[in-house]
Amino acid sequence: MRESRKRKFIYLSFLLLMGVLVFPILGWAGDPAGTAIGTIQDIPAKEPGKPTLEEIGAVVGHNKIAINIVWTLITGFLVMFMQAGFAMVETGFTREKNVAHTMAMNFLIYAIGMLGYWIAGFAFMFGGLGPLATLGGASALDHEVAINLFGKPFGLFGLKGFFLSGDAYDVSIFTLFLFQMVFMDTAATIPTGAMAERWKFAPFVIYGFFISMILYPLFGNWVWGGGWLSQLGANFGLGHGHVDFAGSSVVHMVGGVTALAGAMVLGPRLGKYKKDGTPNPIPGHNIPMAIIGTFILAFGWFGFNPGSTLAGTDLRIGVIATNTMLASAAGAFSATLYMWWVYGKPDPSMMANGMLAGLVAITAPCAFVNSVAAVFIGLVAGVLVVWSVFFIEKTLKVDDPVGAVSVHGTCGAWGVLSLGLFADGTYGEGWNGVPGTVKGLFYGDASQFIAQIIGTLTNFIVVFTLAYAFFKVLDAVMGMRVPVEVEIQGLDVPEMGVQGYTDYQPPIPTEEEKKRLVADFPPHVNKKLVQAEM
Amino acid sequence: MRESRKRKFIYLSFLLLMGVLVFPILGWAGDPAGTAIGTIQDIPAKEPGKPTLEEIGAVVGHNKIAINIVWTLITGFLVMFMQAGFAMVETGFTREKNVAHTMAMNFLIYAIGMLGYWIAGFAFMFGGLGPLATLGGASALDHEVAINLFGKPFGLFGLKGFFLSGDAYDVSIFTLFLFQMVFMDTAATIPTGAMAERWKFAPFVIYGFFISMILYPLFGNWVWGGGWLSQLGANFGLGHGHVDFAGSSVVHMVGGVTALAGAMVLGPRLGKYKKDGTPNPIPGHNIPMAIIGTFILAFGWFGFNPGSTLAGTDLRIGVIATNTMLASAAGAFSATLYMWWVYGKPDPSMMANGMLAGLVAITAPCAFVNSVAAVFIGLVAGVLVVWSVFFIEKTLKVDDPVGAVSVHGTCGAWGVLSLGLFADGTYGEGWNGVPGTVKGLFYGDASQFIAQIIGTLTNFIVVFTLAYAFFKVLDAVMGMRVPVEVEIQGLDVPEMGVQGYTDYQPPIPTEEEKKRLVADFPPHVNKKLVQAEM
Amino acid sequence: MRESRKRKFIYLSFLLLMGVLVFPILGWAGDPAGTAIGTIQDIPAKEPGKPTLEEIGAVVGHNKIAINIVWTLITGFLVMFMQAGFAMVETGFTREKNVAHTMAMNFLIYAIGMLGYWIAGFAFMFGGLGPLATLGGASALDHEVAINLFGKPFGLFGLKGFFLSGDAYDVSIFTLFLFQMVFMDTAATIPTGAMAERWKFAPFVIYGFFISMILYPLFGNWVWGGGWLSQLGANFGLGHGHVDFAGSSVVHMVGGVTALAGAMVLGPRLGKYKKDGTPNPIPGHNIPMAIIGTFILAFGWFGFNPGSTLAGTDLRIGVIATNTMLASAAGAFSATLYMWWVYGKPDPSMMANGMLAGLVAITAPCAFVNSVAAVFIGLVAGVLVVWSVFFIEKTLKVDDPVGAVSVHGTCGAWGVLSLGLFADGTYGEGWNGVPGTVKGLFYGDASQFIAQIIGTLTNFIVVFTLAYAFFKVLDAVMGMRVPVEVEIQGLDVPEMGVQGYTDYQPPIPTEEEKKRLVADFPPHVNKKLVQAEM
Repeated sequence: MRESRKRKFIYLSFLLLMGVLVFPILGWAGDPAGTAIGTIQDIPAKEPGKPTLEEIGAVVGHNKIAINIVWTLITGFLVMFMQAGFAMVETGFTREKNVAHTMAMNFLIYAIGMLGYWIAGFAFMFGGLGPLATLGGASALDHEVAINLFGKPFGLFGLKGFFLSGDAYDVSIFTLFLFQMVFMDTAATIPTGAMAERWKFAPFVIYGFFISMILYPLFGNWVWGGGWLSQLGANFGLGHGHVDFAGSSVVHMVGGVTALAGAMVLGPRLGKYKKDGTPNPIPGHNIPMAIIGTFILAFGWFGFNPGSTLAGTDLRIGVIATNTMLASAAGAFSATLYMWWVYGKPDPSMMANGMLAGLVAITAPCAFVNSVAAVFIGLVAGVLVVWSVFFIEKTLKVDDPVGAVSVHGTCGAWGVLSLGLFADGTYGEGWNGVPGTVKGLFYGDASQFIAQIIGTLTNFIVVFTLAYAFFKVLDAVMGMRVPVEVEIQGLDVPEMGVQGYTDYQPPIPTEEEKKRLVADFPPHVNKKLVQAEM
Repeated sequence: MRESRKRKFIYLSFLLLMGVLVFPILGWAGDPAGTAIGTIQDIPAKEPGKPTLEEIGAVVGHNKIAINIVWTLITGFLVMFMQAGFAMVETGFTREKNVAHTMAMNFLIYAIGMLGYWIAGFAFMFGGLGPLATLGGASALDHEVAINLFGKPFGLFGLKGFFLSGDAYDVSIFTLFLFQMVFMDTAATIPTGAMAERWKFAPFVIYGFFISMILYPLFGNWVWGGGWLSQLGANFGLGHGHVDFAGSSVVHMVGGVTALAGAMVLGPRLGKYKKDGTPNPIPGHNIPMAIIGTFILAFGWFGFNPGSTLAGTDLRIGVIATNTMLASAAGAFSATLYMWWVYGKPDPSMMANGMLAGLVAITAPCAFVNSVAAVFIGLVAGVLVVWSVFFIEKTLKVDDPVGAVSVHGTCGAWGVLSLGLFADGTYGEGWNGVPGTVKGLFYGDASQFIAQIIGTLTNFIVVFTLAYAFFKVLDAVMGMRVPVEVEIQGLDVPEMGVQGYTDYQPPIPTEEEKKRLVADFPPHVNKKLVQAEM
Repeated sequence: MRESRKRKFIYLSFLLLMGVLVFPILGWAGDPAGTAIGTIQDIPAKEPGKPTLEEIGAVVGHNKIAINIVWTLITGFLVMFMQAGFAMVETGFTREKNVAHTMAMNFLIYAIGMLGYWIAGFAFMFGGLGPLATLGGASALDHEVAINLFGKPFGLFGLKGFFLSGDAYDVSIFTLFLFQMVFMDTAATIPTGAMAERWKFAPFVIYGFFISMILYPLFGNWVWGGGWLSQLGANFGLGHGHVDFAGSSVVHMVGGVTALAGAMVLGPRLGKYKKDGTPNPIPGHNIPMAIIGTFILAFGWFGFNPGSTLAGTDLRIGVIATNTMLASAAGAFSATLYMWWVYGKPDPSMMANGMLAGLVAITAPCAFVNSVAAVFIGLVAGVLVVWSVFFIEKTLKVDDPVGAVSVHGTCGAWGVLSLGLFADGTYGEGWNGVPGTVKGLFYGDASQFIAQIIGTLTNFIVVFTLAYAFFKVLDAVMGMRVPVEVEIQGLDVPEMGVQGYTDYQPPIPTEEEKKRLVADFPPHVNKKLVQAEM
C-alpha cells in the first residue's frame, strides 16, 4: 500500500517535470498586452485612423454616458443582491418552524414590489421630473401634481412613466428605473423582518403592492423626485433642502417606520411577553445564516451608496465607498464592545445589527463627510441600535424579531440628521438647485440641519400614519395574523404548503396549550387580534 | 448593577461628546472631490496638457475598448457566480443524504467544463470566426469546417484557438473566452440537477468533458460562432437567422434537453414512482438554501443578459437589464398565483422555479422587446414551468428532482419563440449580417418566427439525440447509476467519502428493504438498469 | 375538482390570448436604443455641440481616470465579498458547536482590521510613496523611513496618511485605501481558520489590530509600498525586484505563515491527536457551506487579481482574469484526481482546497504568464496542497482545522516562485522602475527567480518570527486558549453568549471526561497551555 503510494508519487513527479519542459519551446503570438486594440483606429471615422474633431467628440460623449450607465447598472445589480442578504438575516434571526414562510416573503416581495413599481410607483415618484437627458444630471422641476402653500409650489407626486411606456421606453429611463426599483424593494423588504413569524401571506402580498405603488413613491418623490422637501432650500432658504444622498430616510426610515406600524398592528408573537409584560428572548435559529446575510448586505451597500451618484464619472465615488465601509466597521465594533461591556458577551446578533446600523446611518451623509466623521457616525449608530432595540422591546413592548425598526428606522433618522451636522462642504455643488456645497451645522450652516429635521419628522409622521392606517384597514378586511395554532406549529406548512427543512418536526399544539398561550398574553397586547382568528 | 449601567451610559455619552467637539477643528486638504485628477493632463502627450488631435484620439479609442472589456469581464464574473446559485438550488431541492454529492457535482463541473472548453470547446465554437478586432463587433464568417447544402455554405464548427494558444494569446480573445466559458458552464451544470441523487461520480466527470468540448460548442457554433443557423437570414431570407441574444436556446435548452436525455437514461430515483406509475413527492431538504440560490441566479443573470452585448458602450444594456428583471418578477408572480389558485398554497419551490422560468425565457428576447412584452413573456413562463413540471413527472414519468428540464428546456424554447413574436424592431440593426432591425411576427416579420422555430427544433433533435446516445454508451461501458444500497443510504459516503452534514445519520438498508424497493419499481422503468448494479 | 382545474385552464388561456392581442396596438417613443444620448452634445462646451480640442481633451482625460476608479472600486467590492467566502469555508469545515464563534471571528475581523488599517496600517504601508497622481501609476520612491545597507536605501515603512487625513482626503487615495484594505482583511482572516475552535475572543480582537496595523503593512510596504524588496531590481539587478502581482506572498503567505505561528502557539484541539501522536480526523460539519464559500472566494478572486492593475484601461485584465480562473480549475481538478487516485474517493474538502490552492498560486504570476502556464501552476498547486495538509498534520503535528496554512502559505510560496519560472515577457514593462518586461527563469532571466526566492524566504522568516513572538506574548499576558470545558462543550455559549444553531445541544463534559481528554493529549503538545486554563 505505502509502496504503491510511493510509486504514484514518482509517476506524478515525472508528469510534472514533463509539463515544465514544454514551456521553453512554446511560441506565442496574438496581442497579449492589448497594444493592437484600443487605438485611434477604433474611432468610427470616414477616413479610418484619421478621425476629425467631430468624430472624436462623438465617441468621447458616448464613452462618458456609457461609463455612467455601466456604473449605474452594476451598482444597481449589487443593490438587488441585497434581497438575498435580507432574506438570510431575517430567516437566520427567526425560528426554524417558519423558515419557508420568512424566506418566501423576502423572495416574493422582490417580484411584487417590482411589478407595482413598474405599473405605477416609478411614475408617481419620478414622473414629475423633466426628461433625464443624461444619467447623473437630473433636470428641471416639472411637477405634474403640486399644491401651492405659502406662495410656493409644493410638489407632491408625478404622473409620467406608467408601465415604462411611451417616452419612458428609453435607455436612460430604464436604467434609472432599475436602480430606483431595487432601492424601493429594499424599503419594501424591511417590514417582513419586523412582522415575521405571524403574518398571513395574502395580506402580505397586498402590502407589497401598497408600499411599491404608493407609500414609498410618495416620500421618495418629495426628496428625490423634485418634490417639496427637496425644494426647502430653493423655496425657503433651508440649506439645500432635505438632502439624503442614498436613502437613510427615503429608503431605510420608510422601511423601518412601516415596520414599526406593521409590528404594532400585528402584535407580538405568542410567548414573546410574559404576563407581566417583560419580554422573553426568542433566539434566532441560525447565526451563520444571519452573519452571511449581513456580509451580503454590506457588499450590496457598495452599490447602494456609491451608485447613487448615478455616474461613474463623478469621482467622489471613491470617498463614498470608503466612508460607507468605515461606518459599517465602526458600527459593528461599537455595538460589539458595548454589548460586551454592558452585558458581558460580544453578542454576534448585535455585531451584525451594529454593522447594518452603521451602514444605514452613513447612507445619507456618505458623500458629504470625511472619513473621521464617517467613523464617528458609525460608532454612534452601533450604540444607538442597541439602545433602540431594548427601548422598542422593553418600553414600547413592540415585538420586532430581527431589530428592523431599530436598524433602519432609528439609525436612518440618525443618518439624515448626521448629514446636517457633519457635511463638510467638499461636495454637493448646486445640490437641489441651491448654489454652493452642502454644509452641516459644524461647518457653518445650521439651516441645513433644520431641513434635515423637517424631513425626518415628515417621514415619521406621514409614513407612520399611512402605514398604520393601511395595516388597520387590511386587518379589518381580511385579517393580518395567522390563527394561534398555525403560529404555534409554524407557518411553513399551513401557509406555504411545505416544511422549510425536511428534518424539522413541528410541534402540534393541544387545545390546552393554545388556550394557555393566549391567556398568558400580557394586557398590553390586543387580545381580540389573536382571539378573532381562533 | 443598574447603577453601573447608568455610569457606563454617562461615560459613553461623554466620550461621544468629545468626539463631536473634534470636528470644527479638523482641517482638510487633498482632492476630495476629484477635481485635480481626470483632466487634460492625464492624456499622454509630447507637450503635457496640450495634446494633439492624434494624441487625444488614441486615448479615446482606448477608453472605448476599455469600457467594453471592463463590462464584459464584470458581467462574466457575475455569470460565473451563478455556479454557486445552481449548487444551492439543486442541493436545496434534493435530499439531506446526498448533499455532498450534489454540491460536489455542481462544484467540479465548473473546473471540468472550463478545462474542456479551454482544450477544445472554445476552438470548436468560435474558431471559425475571423479575428475579433474589438469586443462587441464579431467579424465576417470564415468557417473552418462547413458543408455545402442547397448551394449555400453550412458552417458546422471551427478549428482555431485550442489551448488559447498562438494567435489566441490576445486580450480580446481571453476576455471572450472568459465570458463564453461561464456560459458553457451554465449549460453544463443544468443536467446535474435533473440527474441528482443517483449518478455515479466517474461517468459524471466524463460527461463534463463531453458537454464542454463537443455538445455545447456544436450548437453554440451554429448560432453564435457564425454557423448555419445564424446564416438562415443571409442565406435563405428567414429574418436575421436564428437569433438568441443571450442563450435561451444555446445555453438553457442545450442544458435542459441534455438533462432530459440524462434523466431518461438514468431512470427515476428509488421510491419516486409507485407501482402503478403515479409519482410520490420527494420534497427538497432545505428551502432557504434553494431560495438564496435562486436570488444568486437572478443576480448573476444581470451578467448573463446585459453582458451579452459584449460592450458597455452599447447603451441598450439599460433596457436589457430592466427587461430581464421584469420577466423574472412576472415569472415568480404568475407561478405563485397559479399554484395558489389551482393547488391552494403559494408553493415556495414554484416561486423559485417561476422566477428562473421568467429569466430563462427572457434570455433570448431581452434585447429586442419592450417592458410590456418582457412582463408578458415572464407571466407565460411562470405558468408554463408549472405545467411542464407536472407533464414531465406525471405523463412522461421522467424523474427530474429539481425541475431543470422544465425551467431550462421548456422555457428556453418559449424564450427563443417569444423573440420571434415580440421583437419590436427597436434594436438589432444588421444582426447576423442582415440589414434592418430584428422584428417578430407581431411587428410584421413572420419569417423571423420561422427561423426561431427551426432553431428550436434543431436544438431539440440534435442535442437530444447526441446526449441520449452519449449517455447510453456511457451506461453500457461503465454504468451510470449507483447501486441500490448506495442510493438508499445516500451517495455522500459511498461516492464522496464524507457525510455532507456530520449530524446526519444515513439509513442502512436491509436486504429485504432493497428487494422491496426494487420490486416496487413500476414497469415503465428499465429494471435492468437497477438490478445490474446490485 | 378536475373539472374546476380545466375551467381555470380555459380562463387562463383566454387571459393570455388577450395579453397577446394588446401588442400590435402598442405605440412606443422615447430612445430605446440610446441614439439620442451619448453624443457630442454631452461634452461640456461653451458652444454646445461644438466643443474645442481642449474641451474634448478635458472629458477624455476624465473618462480615463473614471474608468480606472470604477474598475478599482468594483473589483475592490468583489474582494470585500470574499470575507463571506472565508466565513463559510472556515465555519463549514469546523464543528457545529463552534459555529457562532467561528462566524463571529470572520465577521469582526473585517471591522477590526479596517479600523486598524485606517488608523495606521495604510500609512505604514503606503505612506512612503509620493502622491498618487492617478490610479494605476504609482510614483517615485519617497520613503519616510529607510535604512542604508550595502550603500543602498532599504525602505522599511511609510508615515503618511494616518486616519486618511490631511492630503489623504483625496478620491484617488480613498479608492486605493478601499482596495488595499480589503486585501489586508483577506490576510487577516486567514489565521482565524487555522486557529478556530479554541481561540479566546479577547486575544483575537487584539490580534486583529496587530496584523492590520503592523504585521501586514510591514511586509506589504516592502513589496508594494516601494520598500526594499521591490527595489532589489533597481538596487541589485535582481530582475524587477520581488514581484508579486496580486499578493501570493503579500497577502496569502502573510496570512498563512501567521496562521502557522498561531496554530503552533495555541496547540491542537482536544482529541485531534492520539496519545501516540497520530491524528484523528475531525470532519467539518457542513460541506455545502464550505463549497458555497469556495465559490464565493473564486468569485471574489476576479476582483483580487484583475483589480490589481488598479486600471480598467490596462487591457491585460482580460488575460489576468482568464489565467485566474484556469488555475483555479486546474487546482480543483488535480487535487480531486490525486485524492481519488491515492485515497480512493474524490474528497469534496480537497476539491475546495484544490481550487483555493490554484487561486492562491496564480495570484502572483497571473499577469505575467500565458494560459498553459496558468493551468500548470494550478495543477501543481492542487497536488501541493494535499501534500502540505498531510505534512503539517502528520509530520509537524500542527492542527490546522481548515488547511489554511497549506492553502495560503504553501501555495502562496509556490505562487511567487512560479512567477520567477514562467513569466513570459509579454507584460510588466518598467515594473518597479526596471526597464523591460518581467521574465522568469524559463524565459531567460534567472535573476528574477532569485528575487522571488529572497522575497519568499524573507516573508517566512520575518512574518513567522513576529507572529510567533506576538502570540507568545499575548498568551503570557492574557491567555490565548479557552478552558478545556469550554472547548468540549463548544465556544458558542461561553464565548459569544448564544448557540449558533438553536437545535444543537452542546455536550456537557464531566470532570472525568475532561481529565481523560487532557491526559490523552500527546507529548508533543504543551500540556501546560491547556492545564493552565482549567
